[in-house]
Amino acid sequence: MRNVYFTPGPSALYFTVEHHLKQALKQGIASVSHRSDTFKAFFAEAESNLRTLVQLPDDYQLVFTHSASEIWEKMTDAFVAGKSLHLVNGAFAGKFYKVVKDLGKQADSVEAPWGELPRYAALPDTEYDLIGLVHNETSTGVKTPLAEIGRLRQQYPEALIALDAVSSLPVVDLNYADTDMVYASVQKAFGLPAGLGVWLLNDRARQRAMAMEQKGLLRQTLHNVTSLINQAKNHQTPSTPNILGIYLFAKVTGDMIDRGIRQIRNDGIYKAAIMYNMLDQHDVLRPFVQDKALRSDTIIVIDSGPRTHHLLDYLARHKMIAGNGYGKMKGKQVRIANFPTHSKEQFEMLADLIEKFK
Amino acid sequence: MRNVYFTPGPSALYFTVEHHLKQALKQGIASVSHRSDTFKAFFAEAESNLRTLVQLPDDYQLVFTHSASEIWEKMTDAFVAGKSLHLVNGAFAGKFYKVVKDLGKQADSVEAPWGELPRYAALPDTEYDLIGLVHNETSTGVKTPLAEIGRLRQQYPEALIALDAVSSLPVVDLNYADTDMVYASVQKAFGLPAGLGVWLLNDRARQRAMAMEQKGLLRQTLHNVTSLINQAKNHQTPSTPNILGIYLFAKVTGDMIDRGIRQIRNDGIYKAAIMYNMLDQHDVLRPFVQDKALRSDTIIVIDSGPRTHHLLDYLARHKMIAGNGYGKMKGKQVRIANFPTHSKEQFEMLADLIEKFK
Repeated sequence: MRNVYFTPGPSALYFTVEHHLKQALKQGIASVSHRSDTFKAFFAEAESNLRTLVQLPDDYQLVFTHSASEIWEKMTDAFVAGKSLHLVNGAFAGKFYKVVKDLGKQADSVEAPWGELPRYAALPDTEYDLIGLVHNETSTGVKTPLAEIGRLRQQYPEALIALDAVSSLPVVDLNYADTDMVYASVQKAFGLPAGLGVWLLNDRARQRAMAMEQKGLLRQTLHNVTSLINQAKNHQTPSTPNILGIYLFAKVTGDMIDRGIRQIRNDGIYKAAIMYNMLDQHDVLRPFVQDKALRSDTIIVIDSGPRTHHLLDYLARHKMIAGNGYGKMKGKQVRIANFPTHSKEQFEMLADLIEKFK
Repeated sequence: MRNVYFTPGPSALYFTVEHHLKQALKQGIASVSHRSDTFKAFFAEAESNLRTLVQLPDDYQLVFTHSASEIWEKMTDAFVAGKSLHLVNGAFAGKFYKVVKDLGKQADSVEAPWGELPRYAALPDTEYDLIGLVHNETSTGVKTPLAEIGRLRQQYPEALIALDAVSSLPVVDLNYADTDMVYASVQKAFGLPAGLGVWLLNDRARQRAMAMEQKGLLRQTLHNVTSLINQAKNHQTPSTPNILGIYLFAKVTGDMIDRGIRQIRNDGIYKAAIMYNMLDQHDVLRPFVQDKALRSDTIIVIDSGPRTHHLLDYLARHKMIAGNGYGKMKGKQVRIANFPTHSKEQFEMLADLIEKFK
């Protein structure tokens, strides 16, 4: 029996990936030119599938990068002329804030303790070019209620809203009118091998980047945002991309459409409920996030304290690989991914095991 | 029968890749954390294997990027405070030159027509921070004789020498004392799926980057050269990398060691000789590069003129996929990769087919 990975990312591959990888080898996908019609066809398929899967509005463009973390730098270059605001309640929100400051731009942050949400009702009365927030903090298991994102839009109508949905896309049902950019990694809820970032930008973001470029403020690189967008319009990339990754993305999003996004989302809610309900009644463990409205559906964090390594080892003996706490919480928490590839049966088995843990 | 890809990159996968990919799936390699000991172990294996394979001196460090083309930007940020010099005799040398200028740095270029070499004997008498040259121009099939690289070192002892070996590493037997950096893509002579760049830097380069950083001149990003080097020393990367790509790199370099680099290099010379000899005597085709000393062993460019599409189609009907000309030579030339994965038998068949072409 193979290990089942409940790690928050890289995580278990979507259950159809192995099949598609074998098909790709048969068809020589890794050898086709990224300038060929074959490549353009599966880039187009990837885009069209994602559009269908998450009901992406027409004014959003998909571009591929090599990772989500490089998008922070590209956003800073393209969109921050004055100042950015960052809602920081975990490691990843904090990393974007640090990138902006390290690049010599001005940035404000509103911080909240890990496990909580920044106070959206008490944000600075300042003009920002861009606001960065994390829908689903992979480090803490806190999700941002979607209504808060809409509230940001109302308070800062001029700012671009950049939403990190690294560990929740495509499971989360976003209102894309409340954001200008959404970005994700494929090695999390998409269930794909690491090495590809997904960046969705609307026309407003594109126009801001073009305006920056016209003013000579956009760093001119091969892979900056205007270059990525211009190439993506023709289902191309500025240089040789992770071709196999884009092919697998097209195929897996197609499989997810066939399964039905509503089904995937409902399954996710069911699996999260099993786990949180069990944890709420556990003898020695508890959910890290106290406020039930903030508990992530896709990243479930267990406050396991000194029992952390014992719990991880116990699960590993049963071929279930869970994640350690992130950063300062390493050795103090266990993180469990609840992604579309994790079946209800696997999750029930995992919850049963954890329930018996002492 | 599957197609055989003689395209210059992406090209045919190394013949063991399919096996290793299946093993990786069985072992859950795509799901392991990039902070795990498992990951560190195959990063270490990749480094150790490459060191053995190309006889890399101890003072060189291997870092992985997502592509070779992003290295141009990182080198500009890290090493060009004053001015760089670029020896431009094809598209890829020209792209690096353009990146430096686009980033607002000073750069000189010495240009040569496609198919020829810049005049190394008549270079500017100026001080440069960095000199960029291409060992093997993938766009033209011209190789730079290794003695010319040593001559550069003598003329510019202070400059860092950055050698693009994108389509010749690990086949070329470099003198690493004549360079400070060498970089390559894995989808060419390594025979791996695209989505990984290989960057070798010596201590001198590392110290220059640190000096730039101390002066506040190094752009502070998550993935700049000092961050990549510091992480690589612990067999780590700043953010989630192409984990599967690094695993496959470790395995394929191991296979190449088992086969023997001398054997690989001798096979390459034999295959190139077959092709060039046939082309020299062909009725309607000829090698693009006139000077035999400049003819690349790994990228063989055929001057096919108006017959280009006819030749490509003719080969494709025999399941042999060759590359079109690059950029301005599209539709006028055919490019053939001669990489370690291409067997002598495949090459003989290909040469026989081309010989019969009219």
